[in-house]
Amino acid sequence: MGMTMTQKILAAHAGLDAVTAGQLVEAKLDVVMANDITGPMAVPVFRQMADKVFDKNKVVLVPDHFTPNKDIKSAENSKSIREFAKDQGLTHYYEIGQMGIEHALLPEKGITVAGECIIGADSHTCTYGALGAFSTGVGTTDIATGMATGELWFKVPSAIQFVLTGKPGKYVSGKDIILHIIGKIGVDGALYKSMEFVGDGLSELSMDDRFTMANMAIEAGAKNGIFLVDEKAEAYMKEHSEKPYTIYTPDADAAYDEIIEIDLSEVRPTVAFPHLPGNAHTIDEIEAMESIKIDQVVIGSCTNGRMEDMRRAAKILKGHKVHPDVRVIVIPGTQAIYKECLKEGIAEIFVDAGCAFSTPSCGPCMGGHMGVLAAGEKCVSTTNRNFVGRMGHVDSLIYLASPETAAASAIKGYIANPEKAGE
Amino acid sequence: MGMTMTQKILAAHAGLDAVTAGQLVEAKLDVVMANDITGPMAVPVFRQMADKVFDKNKVVLVPDHFTPNKDIKSAENSKSIREFAKDQGLTHYYEIGQMGIEHALLPEKGITVAGECIIGADSHTCTYGALGAFSTGVGTTDIATGMATGELWFKVPSAIQFVLTGKPGKYVSGKDIILHIIGKIGVDGALYKSMEFVGDGLSELSMDDRFTMANMAIEAGAKNGIFLVDEKAEAYMKEHSEKPYTIYTPDADAAYDEIIEIDLSEVRPTVAFPHLPGNAHTIDEIEAMESIKIDQVVIGSCTNGRMEDMRRAAKILKGHKVHPDVRVIVIPGTQAIYKECLKEGIAEIFVDAGCAFSTPSCGPCMGGHMGVLAAGEKCVSTTNRNFVGRMGHVDSLIYLASPETAAASAIKGYIANPEKAGE
Repeated sequence: MGMTMTQKILAAHAGLDAVTAGQLVEAKLDVVMANDITGPMAVPVFRQMADKVFDKNKVVLVPDHFTPNKDIKSAENSKSIREFAKDQGLTHYYEIGQMGIEHALLPEKGITVAGECIIGADSHTCTYGALGAFSTGVGTTDIATGMATGELWFKVPSAIQFVLTGKPGKYVSGKDIILHIIGKIGVDGALYKSMEFVGDGLSELSMDDRFTMANMAIEAGAKNGIFLVDEKAEAYMKEHSEKPYTIYTPDADAAYDEIIEIDLSEVRPTVAFPHLPGNAHTIDEIEAMESIKIDQVVIGSCTNGRMEDMRRAAKILKGHKVHPDVRVIVIPGTQAIYKECLKEGIAEIFVDAGCAFSTPSCGPCMGGHMGVLAAGEKCVSTTNRNFVGRMGHVDSLIYLASPETAAASAIKGYIANPEKAGE
Repeated sequence: MGMTMTQKILAAHAGLDAVTAGQLVEAKLDVVMANDITGPMAVPVFRQMADKVFDKNKVVLVPDHFTPNKDIKSAENSKSIREFAKDQGLTHYYEIGQMGIEHALLPEKGITVAGECIIGADSHTCTYGALGAFSTGVGTTDIATGMATGELWFKVPSAIQFVLTGKPGKYVSGKDIILHIIGKIGVDGALYKSMEFVGDGLSELSMDDRFTMANMAIEAGAKNGIFLVDEKAEAYMKEHSEKPYTIYTPDADAAYDEIIEIDLSEVRPTVAFPHLPGNAHTIDEIEAMESIKIDQVVIGSCTNGRMEDMRRAAKILKGHKVHPDVRVIVIPGTQAIYKECLKEGIAEIFVDAGCAFSTPSCGPCMGGHMGVLAAGEKCVSTTNRNFVGRMGHVDSLIYLASPETAAASAIKGYIANPEKAGE
């Protein structure tokens, strides 16, 4: 029986010729990452196990959630990992002003590449699967173990293969596709499985589309999301990284639990209604409903804070003003993306439209800061989770959408079709 | 006996020919302002007195302190004044994306002009004195009364006249001058008095210098700070406002408690050490001490977040990188200033240097968000108060400085002389 992409990576990192789903393996780690929430919890656990991290080039700390620090507690937390990074001589510690949201930053800095085994103490660590890596979120105790030993046990996942075909419409991007998929299979549709993306349709997806899709694999319950590495992915890695990478392709006889074909040309702009990412509705269904008036729009996060997301949102907002009843917060994912927004005049488009354009941060995505919601407020957000209270008050409502749908909604004041934003 | 500038404005607004220091008067109000901290407290008090504000063009609400909202509580507070502004049909309510820090925003929007009687539920309301207005901070109960009746009682203040002469050095700006003055007279040196600025030296001060100086009058305990209106102030008002204004000049025989001459050419770059704005040291004194290493620099606030402040800081930072041990947060005062920073390439200078460039907000100035300090941290800040715990932990230390001194310190990693920033 052959192996999936994920299984091949795990086998290689466990020093085994083959692994099968359900098998427990001890795998070597290429990247071990934590942030300003999970890092401060992991450090004391780490100290019980070791004095020095297993490799100062492979342990990465990014203070991105509550930075610039929102209160004393978050300042103390950031301080603790800053001091740890300095004390351990970590190569990859990124301070505000040079940093970004972890899952936007690591690929951009060339820290993550194809074929690697990556863990992060953040559920959206699955993002790096866009580059053909095995990458998954773990708890702080596991991260502490990884920091100390450079190894971690995994139960080898089985997998669902998604065969992408066709070409998405002009106003359809990675976010719509992954919301469509989660809507189809449900938030536990890939529980502890790999979501492996292959097919001719891949070539129609930009790297930023793929990062968005891999990022949300966890929202279908997946252990990881992973894309077949193609020329586009190789070009991205060559541009961003000097690390060697390995491309793993699935065996022809790999044991997939299921093979699902997704015709990208049939995917419509899609919005996930409260309170689950799987509660997906097409923009056509939404247009047939009574207008859903909104109070806030957030464009950013590890899901949709990349350059293409900024460009897509700006294209819709250019020459328009945001609706007077709507607050719009745009948060580029990294300082480099921020700078590119300055260079391309995109920051100016946002400011002219009446958006708050923030320094990189996870911001309001998990109710951190920079746009937390009050009771009764409705928010269209390009983030990844619309759970009860995720972005603030338990009585607030979150609608997950693409940057274009979010931008169109910002102008109209209700959830709007980006295809008609010019009207 | 003649009247001071302040006394003339109060007399005119009380419908009296003359007033004297210590007299209680009931004055008509031209502007009544509150923010997202004081507004939500004032509204319920207002409701006990009235259903409608006395004038929907004269009551101004600016959510600037904890915006974009840092938590659920601040979101609820912002929501309460947003709904109040809508319900009352207020002309001047400014949402994130269009807004700014109240004391930078109101003059820019032309809401405050010379000769007016202005109250704000924020201690730095004295800022508008730069335009020749009587302007002072009051409590929320007084603001509620002002919102309801358009009048408020005042005890007419006596005054100190500051006669400015000479020309400040290239790296000396309004901040250095006001810190020099507060250092000279102490934090209670002008207790319940007017600080009235006149003299030939005025012509050497930009409007932004004057806003900074008037802004910090409260830090010497003053009831208000006020500048003689000259051509520069008139030009500013004509550019920004369509409101009529009245210029009040002090009588030749006005009863000043004291007349203090300040030779601007003798003012040095000045830094106020913890924990009082009056604890002023010249940069020369500081250079003779052991280096004071710093963890953070903040450039912004109602004191120093104006366009000239941005330009002065950027000029120092251009082509440099911030010190690796220092986080630098730059916060332009208003969306218009933010946009001008984009246009002039100043935002890019900050980003290239490694600064976090934030959307307008009061931010960390009073420990709100966007850079709160941890225990033991030292911050050079262009803000207005260095009280114990003002910007975060009670064991953090704040050094108040000009934008140029802050920028020079950001590069060096210790409190540094802006005159030598190029070295």
